[in-house]
Amino acid sequence: MTKSEIQTLIDSLAGKKLDMFRKDFLLTWEKSRDEIDATFIVADVLRAMREANISPRLWDSGIAVSNFRDNSTRTRFSFASACDLLGLYIQDLDEGKSQIAHGETVRETANMISFLSEAIGIRDDMYLGEGDKYQREVGKALDEGFAAGVLPDRPTVVNLQSDIDHPTQSMADFLHLAHYFGGLDKLKGKKIAMTWAYSPSYGKPLSVPQGIIGLASRFGMDIVLAHPEGYDLIPEVVELSQKQATASGGSFRRATSMDEAFNDADIVYPKSWAPYNVMLERVPLLHANDQAGLKELEKSCLANNAKFKDWECTEEKMKLTKAGKALYMHCLPADITDVSCKAGEVAASVFDRYRDDTYREASYKPYIIAAMILLGKAKDPAATLTRLLERGSARSVL
Amino acid sequence: MTKSEIQTLIDSLAGKKLDMFRKDFLLTWEKSRDEIDATFIVADVLRAMREANISPRLWDSGIAVSNFRDNSTRTRFSFASACDLLGLYIQDLDEGKSQIAHGETVRETANMISFLSEAIGIRDDMYLGEGDKYQREVGKALDEGFAAGVLPDRPTVVNLQSDIDHPTQSMADFLHLAHYFGGLDKLKGKKIAMTWAYSPSYGKPLSVPQGIIGLASRFGMDIVLAHPEGYDLIPEVVELSQKQATASGGSFRRATSMDEAFNDADIVYPKSWAPYNVMLERVPLLHANDQAGLKELEKSCLANNAKFKDWECTEEKMKLTKAGKALYMHCLPADITDVSCKAGEVAASVFDRYRDDTYREASYKPYIIAAMILLGKAKDPAATLTRLLERGSARSVL
Amino acid sequence: MTKSEIQTLIDSLAGKKLDMFRKDFLLTWEKSRDEIDATFIVADVLRAMREANISPRLWDSGIAVSNFRDNSTRTRFSFASACDLLGLYIQDLDEGKSQIAHGETVRETANMISFLSEAIGIRDDMYLGEGDKYQREVGKALDEGFAAGVLPDRPTVVNLQSDIDHPTQSMADFLHLAHYFGGLDKLKGKKIAMTWAYSPSYGKPLSVPQGIIGLASRFGMDIVLAHPEGYDLIPEVVELSQKQATASGGSFRRATSMDEAFNDADIVYPKSWAPYNVMLERVPLLHANDQAGLKELEKSCLANNAKFKDWECTEEKMKLTKAGKALYMHCLPADITDVSCKAGEVAASVFDRYRDDTYREASYKPYIIAAMILLGKAKDPAATLTRLLERGSARSVL
Repeated sequence: MTKSEIQTLIDSLAGKKLDMFRKDFLLTWEKSRDEIDATFIVADVLRAMREANISPRLWDSGIAVSNFRDNSTRTRFSFASACDLLGLYIQDLDEGKSQIAHGETVRETANMISFLSEAIGIRDDMYLGEGDKYQREVGKALDEGFAAGVLPDRPTVVNLQSDIDHPTQSMADFLHLAHYFGGLDKLKGKKIAMTWAYSPSYGKPLSVPQGIIGLASRFGMDIVLAHPEGYDLIPEVVELSQKQATASGGSFRRATSMDEAFNDADIVYPKSWAPYNVMLERVPLLHANDQAGLKELEKSCLANNAKFKDWECTEEKMKLTKAGKALYMHCLPADITDVSCKAGEVAASVFDRYRDDTYREASYKPYIIAAMILLGKAKDPAATLTRLLERGSARSVL
Repeated sequence: MTKSEIQTLIDSLAGKKLDMFRKDFLLTWEKSRDEIDATFIVADVLRAMREANISPRLWDSGIAVSNFRDNSTRTRFSFASACDLLGLYIQDLDEGKSQIAHGETVRETANMISFLSEAIGIRDDMYLGEGDKYQREVGKALDEGFAAGVLPDRPTVVNLQSDIDHPTQSMADFLHLAHYFGGLDKLKGKKIAMTWAYSPSYGKPLSVPQGIIGLASRFGMDIVLAHPEGYDLIPEVVELSQKQATASGGSFRRATSMDEAFNDADIVYPKSWAPYNVMLERVPLLHANDQAGLKELEKSCLANNAKFKDWECTEEKMKLTKAGKALYMHCLPADITDVSCKAGEVAASVFDRYRDDTYREASYKPYIIAAMILLGKAKDPAATLTRLLERGSARSVL
Repeated sequence: MTKSEIQTLIDSLAGKKLDMFRKDFLLTWEKSRDEIDATFIVADVLRAMREANISPRLWDSGIAVSNFRDNSTRTRFSFASACDLLGLYIQDLDEGKSQIAHGETVRETANMISFLSEAIGIRDDMYLGEGDKYQREVGKALDEGFAAGVLPDRPTVVNLQSDIDHPTQSMADFLHLAHYFGGLDKLKGKKIAMTWAYSPSYGKPLSVPQGIIGLASRFGMDIVLAHPEGYDLIPEVVELSQKQATASGGSFRRATSMDEAFNDADIVYPKSWAPYNVMLERVPLLHANDQAGLKELEKSCLANNAKFKDWECTEEKMKLTKAGKALYMHCLPADITDVSCKAGEVAASVFDRYRDDTYREASYKPYIIAAMILLGKAKDPAATLTRLLERGSARSVL
């Protein structure tokens, strides 16, 4: 993109009603369509700037806090890349893994890590019923610290995956879709199949499928959610997605087989997750660090999973999709049959064909995160971006 | 502050006799009053610059080494924030926790990590009789490496807490006091109660109370040190504080109860610490990684602690202070009764009233650390700061 | 060096035939003499720039990935220092230690960590037959990702020590030699003794001695490789070194005692390593995390080592070298008799005399790494360096 094309993109922010300044990005469904769209635009602007060798560095110094309560390679790199791109140094907040802080400790820690901080990324997806709550508690503490004049500014919290939503993933996924289909408006009427898939592992969080249906339902898409009996998602999220789908001019329905879901789909997202009840049962075991109990739960869960090995995204199933050419999506890493495991979520030949697409899908995440941070920190995002563009510092002098 | 007000503050460094260039900051009592005052001034200048959106970035690249031999969240963040503010990238030196390097290893490691380094922060407070020694050993190795031309410059060592002193804490505490009371000179004649307080934990280092009495005694304050029998501090530090108090026109006395100490106090600092002898006994157990021995010691120590549960900063005790309105201080986290524990150092209602003050107190630490680094590295600190001010780079382009 | 002297040094790159752009630096013997020489020149230029307070920062933002499959302090600091000097933020890729990823996982991870990355440093020296392979697999994945348009640029992989070579060490060692003797051309005809030495530890990788003979043989040196029976290096590397030695107008021979090797040597490099067969036996044990098996192997290996305690670099042995004044080299840390152990690789008095030389030797590593990165990323390295010189940004505003 040329500088003037980037400016045009920035100008498309005009007229969007945003209330993101000094706020957090926790759930996509708390954000208005304008705010969602603005996030996509800012992400595209930042990417275009970098590709045009214009540094989108906002800060000469500043701290970004990363708080991962779960292991992660790709989200960690996405967050680090996003923060570094904007000029922030990442400092890990490393608490005990089985211990979730509450009350006074959260309030205090949130302030102690924020004197010179601009953003806080939190990943907390293992504890159903707790991750989102914790992120809100941090946000509240920051509000209070800022109001009391203890903090010079309000750092913005970015949800890097909670028990409820995974907005950096779903937003990256949909920015990919927007580019793939030629615009967000092209998604209207497209059929997306969010379906469970078999995996020889257990305990995968619900936040990805929840994030997908929670966001897909904003664009008038026809959503089919499919999973075996017992693999429900959080009921409130499903309900909300149904309402949103209708409101946006799309539809939402459930299916009981992958075949049914794939039928005539434009997009398929076959991905394993743990049953809702198992995730609930797991929480007290994790807190108690009850290894025997966790092993036991894993065993029974895997035995149950094994009944649904036919929930695999095979070539046969892909043929059921629109013209046999639906776009395959995955948040990665996928469990690939005969590659990463004996039987998994997807056949090797299917994955092979879409590998580069899934990589491209992932490549949007750093920019989505950077956009979320910028929108939480800039009072007038378009003015800030224009300033960056006009400054025109080179990112690389190679 | 406006630019010209900041320049006025910088100008107040004129006439101060400083011998800090290429030296370390290990103990406040090794520093002259001019040097202490200069550290406060530089910290205030750096904070004012950042608040005026003027970047105090000294380096375009450079390494800061963090060497934490003990877990720490707030000091880690303070150090990271300080270094990042000045433009340094933090690289952790992660040695085994129970193993303290000596001799050749220290000499060699100190040089190996310093080829492109500007500052080294060391926290080593668990081993009574060793932490300070280790920091000096590192400093000596750096002197030799620089003298031999092996190192292009002499990195400055900042004591992030040793067995003897905790200067980044005490200096932040006193910068807070200076702002609270309207100037360092206002501290003369103020009564400060540094008292032990009950905590259901053990092994807390002596360096905070030692740091407080060692620094309070420089400003003509009336110091009362109170603790139960057996909870002595390092005798040499107490003695030195007594001498300093007299020399600075203040006083130093001991009390055997919190009530006595709080009586008519302007400032109270109730905080738990381990008995001197327990800290001594602990060292060989830590070295031997003798978990059983440590458990045993902890048990007996906690049993002893429990005799002094009435050493709690309650509303009743606060009423004894000057007009019932002494400033409560704490290095955080405090053990708050009925909040973080059943019985602790401070009553919830007292802590509540002073929460924001303790947060503000903590907020000075990054600037104090940055000031220590700058003073160890700049030959003419006032000239360096003026250069930064005149350069006027924006820290944020938001 | 003045700016114009630095420019002259940059100009000496002219005419060198380089094929390093978008390539990796894995083994010195895959690089042409022009490429080796260019790496030394760029390292010297970067060092001179920094010493002249000219920032060689290439990037305003960007990620460097560090992937250490083995603990390391000095290489970690060298890599961090190099990356920071060029403007990169280091993000650790922390995989399980006993688990080496293969195939799909490597391909995917390599792409996932590289969307905004410029360089990837990998240390993987414990697994004979695997480290180099892994590094190539990463490189191949990056080639594919870049070709597919998934990656905006091709990050360059730097071998921070593999099972085969340790090019950042050997190149730093030889840059030290070039400076010590007054130029690379002065190395022709110099005798270097790469000899095994006794150490009370086991499992030290073969990559240092292999790296030394693999590089020394490029400069027409007379190489003597000495070790006790059974302490062979990888046969292919020895063979290749022999051929290279002859081709460059030098010589290569083997000796069976340290005395023989030291005789009339200009340079001695006495350093312990594990026997080839032991390193091979160790691989499956490491993979299986077989602690008992590893202990057993260690025991038998140490017992065998103990037969060769006289392989120590003593004053007596140093007297055998040219005029008794050969340059002692070591990659550090050395096992120093009566200092770091009872009996080790080198006598304390010998090490003492050469300590500063070994530190100086180590000081080149950050610049060698930075040069490797720059050469992997800059299409026209001389133009890039000239641009940095002309920009003339201060590294420090002290």
